[in-house]
This record gives sequence, structure tokens and C-alpha cells, in this order.
Amino acid sequence: MALIVQKYGGTSLARADNFKHVARRVATLRDQGHDVVVVVSARGDTTDELLGLALEITPEPDERELDLLLSTGEMVSCALLAMALKALEKEAVSLTGLQAGILTDKAHSKARITGVDPGRIQRELKRGQIVIVAGFQGVTTDMDVTTLGRGGSDTTAVALAARLKAGRCEIYTDVEGVYTADPRIVPEARRLDDIGYEEMLELATYGAKVLHPRAAELGLLYDIPILVASTFVEGPGTLVCKGVTMEAKNKVRGIAHDLDVAKITLRGVPDRPGIAATIFEPLAQANISVDTIVQNASLENVTDLTFTVAKGDLTKAMKVVDKRAKQVGFKEVLADGTLGKVSIVGTGMQNTPGYASKMFRALSDAGVNIHLITTSEVRITCIVDGAKVPQAVRALHEAFELAKPQ
Amino acid sequence: MALIVQKYGGTSLARADNFKHVARRVATLRDQGHDVVVVVSARGDTTDELLGLALEITPEPDERELDLLLSTGEMVSCALLAMALKALEKEAVSLTGLQAGILTDKAHSKARITGVDPGRIQRELKRGQIVIVAGFQGVTTDMDVTTLGRGGSDTTAVALAARLKAGRCEIYTDVEGVYTADPRIVPEARRLDDIGYEEMLELATYGAKVLHPRAAELGLLYDIPILVASTFVEGPGTLVCKGVTMEAKNKVRGIAHDLDVAKITLRGVPDRPGIAATIFEPLAQANISVDTIVQNASLENVTDLTFTVAKGDLTKAMKVVDKRAKQVGFKEVLADGTLGKVSIVGTGMQNTPGYASKMFRALSDAGVNIHLITTSEVRITCIVDGAKVPQAVRALHEAFELAKPQ
Repeated sequence: MALIVQKYGGTSLARADNFKHVARRVATLRDQGHDVVVVVSARGDTTDELLGLALEITPEPDERELDLLLSTGEMVSCALLAMALKALEKEAVSLTGLQAGILTDKAHSKARITGVDPGRIQRELKRGQIVIVAGFQGVTTDMDVTTLGRGGSDTTAVALAARLKAGRCEIYTDVEGVYTADPRIVPEARRLDDIGYEEMLELATYGAKVLHPRAAELGLLYDIPILVASTFVEGPGTLVCKGVTMEAKNKVRGIAHDLDVAKITLRGVPDRPGIAATIFEPLAQANISVDTIVQNASLENVTDLTFTVAKGDLTKAMKVVDKRAKQVGFKEVLADGTLGKVSIVGTGMQNTPGYASKMFRALSDAGVNIHLITTSEVRITCIVDGAKVPQAVRALHEAFELAKPQ
Repeated sequence: MALIVQKYGGTSLARADNFKHVARRVATLRDQGHDVVVVVSARGDTTDELLGLALEITPEPDERELDLLLSTGEMVSCALLAMALKALEKEAVSLTGLQAGILTDKAHSKARITGVDPGRIQRELKRGQIVIVAGFQGVTTDMDVTTLGRGGSDTTAVALAARLKAGRCEIYTDVEGVYTADPRIVPEARRLDDIGYEEMLELATYGAKVLHPRAAELGLLYDIPILVASTFVEGPGTLVCKGVTMEAKNKVRGIAHDLDVAKITLRGVPDRPGIAATIFEPLAQANISVDTIVQNASLENVTDLTFTVAKGDLTKAMKVVDKRAKQVGFKEVLADGTLGKVSIVGTGMQNTPGYASKMFRALSDAGVNIHLITTSEVRITCIVDGAKVPQAVRALHEAFELAKPQ
């Protein structure tokens, strides 16, 4: 009998009967003889409600305080689920991030797990308890509460699965698995039976919301098979794992999109060594994730530098960059907060030039203008106008024949 | 400049503008040069809402899980108040019960503080921070979250004041101080300028909701002056302290009442040594507080035993007592959940027989029948029908001329 880690998202835990439903599922698994650790998110819209409360008090809430505030949502969920299990006569115990030994760095609101102290969980499992852990949260060495950023409960689940050497990590959500594209945009999108860690990582990083990128990354690092499936509909789901079937190789597996893209362009940057570091170091210190970076060919030792950030970071990033403007001596800073990203993801992409040209042709035929292009081993991404994203996704899904079973 | 501990109740922290108002008050105190520790309760009806959530899931929520659930209400408040202070450019830091070093026993839902580890609070104060502490909660040696019972935030505040050797503890609430009786029942009730610890303890224990009894007890033990005053209306409040004015001695100072009274009567209990222990030990083990205990004179080695508990504990207490029925061999168990208590409180009561007879006469004249009577050094309590409590309070307030300035 293996140890299984399950994670239930906020839509699976909105109302009291959702908790009872999840409790019955967990109880059934336990009755099969498995050791079970369950990671829970905050109920339904709790996180947004708490954030709204904070914004009523101040437009820029302190991040340390915001983390404590938001972390209460997951505590509520884990206490309620433990109660629901005990009401079914199951031995269960709730643990906060701190009690579960989830240790993080001090980057409030987007902390990274630095380690898991499994002592308490292991003791509770040995006592025969089902262990319910508050996801999304951890604690610094100073005992301050941190949160892992949106979708962080996925990361908690995979990190625990890795540390506890679980046989499997199961992510339960309101969709039936990983799809070739967002079914709300592409009705003929197909559920994938399996997908490799690297591809899942790229899909997640570039906009597929079904699994958090950091969770896919931890799955890859520790080789933890991750099942993504629905809480509400029985079905096979999608298995994220190492051994992807041969047929799936060298094929586009899915289209990701993301509307949370803002672009900053620095015009007339003097092209001398160390200039990029001067600009990006303070952004990193301000904990702003810079995504795509593009530097144009230098003309008369002056260049243009463009990069993208999440829309929520745009104001902060502009402040940081403006501060550097004098020091570095570039001409002007332009910002555009109305962009989006579409990406095709599949193995062997960089060695097969046909993919890129097919992608650009499909977008062009659909009347979608491309602002920036970036590529990786398993992904090609185009930054386009936000409003054009849905038609871009549909055009790519059709061009790469993703509706057909592979 | 002294260290001052302030506590703000749930009605003082209901909406966003309440938090801003409290933040301005705290900031003003800080600007006067004081070190400030603020203890907060959960916002408005949060605790009842969380309890409602739990009851939707199971009629008898596990107490450990309930404690974690309820403790989140105070965490939310302390994070929000710290944000509000930082928005006023004040250095402030929130601390949960665990972070603030509030250590308790393991009696979930009514834990007692066993100690305060002041290290973190003292470090934060030294760094110039205003420290905001989540009231009502603590942590066991196993790092499990406990709550101190309703009104527990008062206890947190006085315990911190004692441990940190604060100059004063200020309890801010929605009333202007301690009154001679509940003004909602007796419109002519007067605010007291001061009151002794013992009298406050009796008033609080016997129903005055303005201060938690355990807080009054800690004030007495550690001689911490406690100011009870309004968050909303500027005014002198009531000082709970040792040095009560001479004139106030040997006088009835106030009337307390309590509608949360249930009575259990054991009929035909064999009158032999150890019988009381056999009955009350399992009640104590089940963490049920037994209040008044009355044993009638024995007749043919058989007696009746009557005691009162909080209404919420009645079902549980009946279960415990029923289990003992066979073992002890009493005839029958009667329960009455519709009672109330009225008490007169003042110093020197037991040595001045006039008080008791005056009390019984006033109740009799008002048509109030007395079920049970108990007394202490500074209090006489009558258990009466719950429905008769308001007229009993009014009759006693008039008989002892409490509307007149003392």
C-alpha cells in the first residue's frame, strides 16, 4: 500500500457539501489501505475576498501582512476537511504549513519552498491519521508565514509527495485533465492521456492554468508522477510523467495562452558590457519576474531592449526601471499592458524548423500581428495583442491538427 | 514612556473604516512615545460565521479542528490592522498567538494560558515596531493551535501586560465602561469610575460581558490596572484596580445577570463519602465547568444534588452523568435549560447580613421565585427563571439605589 498525496483546489471546496464529497473520496482511498496526505486550497473565492478586504484598507498592502491574511483561507479549508473526515469516523488531523514543516525563503507572496521537515506528518501517518495540509503556505526560519503565489497549493502537494516519497501525486480540480488548448476558447480541444514533465512545465509556464509550473518542475526534478483529474467527474485524467509514448514525440502537444502580459521597452540603451545586469538586477531584487527578454541588433552602439512582466508587476517594474534611466542613460521607456502570449509546446521543436514557419503562417493568415518571438527546446511563443489571443489559439489548434487523436 | 497593551474587540473591528479608526488611535499613542502592543479580536461576526461553516459540515465538530478554524478570525484582524498602521507610515508587525509566544494547555476551545514566551514581542518592540497580536489563541507544546474560549482576547491582553510588565492594559469595546447593571435592561444604570479586581471578577463571572473573568483574575494576580472604555466615544471609562475608594467599600457596586444557565438535579443520591467526586471528576475530565453546586440536607442517607452548567454543555453533561447513574445508584436525573442568574456584587457582603435579606425581599416583591442561592465574599447569586431575569435585575438595581452616584 503506497502513500498517496492528493490536492483539492478551491472550486472543489466551495460549499459544505463539497467538503463532504471530498471527505468521502479521501475516506474511500484510505479504506483501500493507502496512507493519505491531502493538500487543500482556500474555499472558492476566499482568497479574492481576503485580498479585497486588504485593498479596502490600503491600496498597497504590506506583503508580509498580506501573506498572513491570505494563508488563513487554506487553514479554514484544512480544518473543515478534517472535521468532515472525523464526521465519517475517520482518523484525520489538519496541519498548517508551519505544522506540516513547509519551509520557505522570505520572498513574501511568491516564496519558494526551501525544504520540508516531514517529522510531524510522518508521526501522524504512523498513528494512522489521514493528514490534511493547508496548501499555498509555508514558514520562514523566523516563523513568519509566507505564501507561494497563486496555484501554490499544487507546489505544496508535489513537494510533499517528493519529500515523503509518495507513489503518486493527484491534483483534483474542476477540469478533466490537461487539454490541447483551453476548451473555453477551442471547443474541439482534446484531453491528453499523458504528457512529459518538460512539456507540462512549458504549457503551465506559458498559460495553461491546470497545473502550477513550479509543481511541474518539482515533478520533473524528483520524478513524481502527477495525475491531473476532475473532482466532480470520474475519468482517467492526464498523467504528467517521464515516459511519454513514442507516437507523441516530435509533435505539437498543446497550445498555451496567457493574457497576463505587459511589455516594457527601453529605447536608445548604450550597448556596453554590464548594461543588462544594471537593469535586471534591481528588478530581481524587487522580486519581479522578467519573462521574455529581447535585445535588438546594435546600431551605432545604441540598442533597444524589450522585456515582459506580469501585468500586476508593471507599475512596480516601471518605477524600478525609471530609477535606472539616468544612471544607464537610455532615451525613453515605453510600456504596453494590453498584450497576450500564445505558445505551441511539443518535444524536439528546436530541431524541426517546420514548426516555427507553420506557426507564423497560421497567425498571419488569422490576421494576428506578432510583437515578439521566443523559443525553447519544447516551445515557441509569440507575443501578440491581447484581444487577438482567442483567434490565435484557434488558428494554431487547427493548423497543428490537435483535434485529431494522436 | 511606558509600555501600554491595548485590546480592541470585534465590534471595534467590523469594517475597513473601523480598522483605519483603530489604527489612528494606536498611531496617536505611539506618537506620544509609548511602546504599544495591540491585541485584536476577530472582526464582527466572523467567529459565529466560522462556527456556522463547521456546523454545516458536522453537528459536533472536533474541538482541535474547531480551534484552528476559529483562530483564523483573529489572524485576519491582526494582519489587517498591521496593514492599516503601515498605510499610516507606522512600523507595525502582526503576530499570531504562536508567534507571540502564547503557550496554553491542551484543553481545546477553553485553553488556559500556561506561559508567555516574550522573546519575539520584545525583539519587535526593540526594533521600534508596534506589535499587533491575534487574541483568543495560543499554542500547545505540540504546536497545536488552541483557543481560550469566548472573550479570550481580554485574557490575552492582560496576560501580555503582566508578562511584559506593561504600565497599563486598556480594553476597548462598544460600551463606555463597567456599569451598575446592563443598560439595555436598566436604562438608569451608571458607569463606575473604578472597581476592585475581586468585584470585577465576580461581576464578569456572573454575567457582565464587558470583561472576561479570566482577564480580571489575571489583573488581580499580577496587579495590572485595566481600563475598560469605548473605542467610539471619548470618555474616562472604568478603571479596574486594587485601590478602590473608601466610599465604595461595603456597598453593592453592580448587578450581574446571565441567561446561559442550565440546571441538573440528581434525585436520590446515596449520601456516602466520595460520591461527589464520582460525579464531578468525569465532568471535569470532559472539560465541563460546573458552576453552582447545592446539596440538600440528607434524609435517610439519601440526598438531592443540584448543579448548574452552561447551556451549551447541558447535553454533554447529561451524557456524562447518565453514565454514572448505575455506578452511583441515584434515582433520576432532571434537567432544566431555561434558567438565569442574577447577582449583586460588592465588598464585605458576607459580613453584612442585611444585603441578602434585602435582595430576597426585592425579588419576592417583584414576583421572582428563587431556585438556588450561592454566595461568596463579594457576591450573592440567585438562580431564577430565565424569563424573570430582566425584572429581577431592575428590582435589584432599584432596591440598592445604584442609580444614585455613590
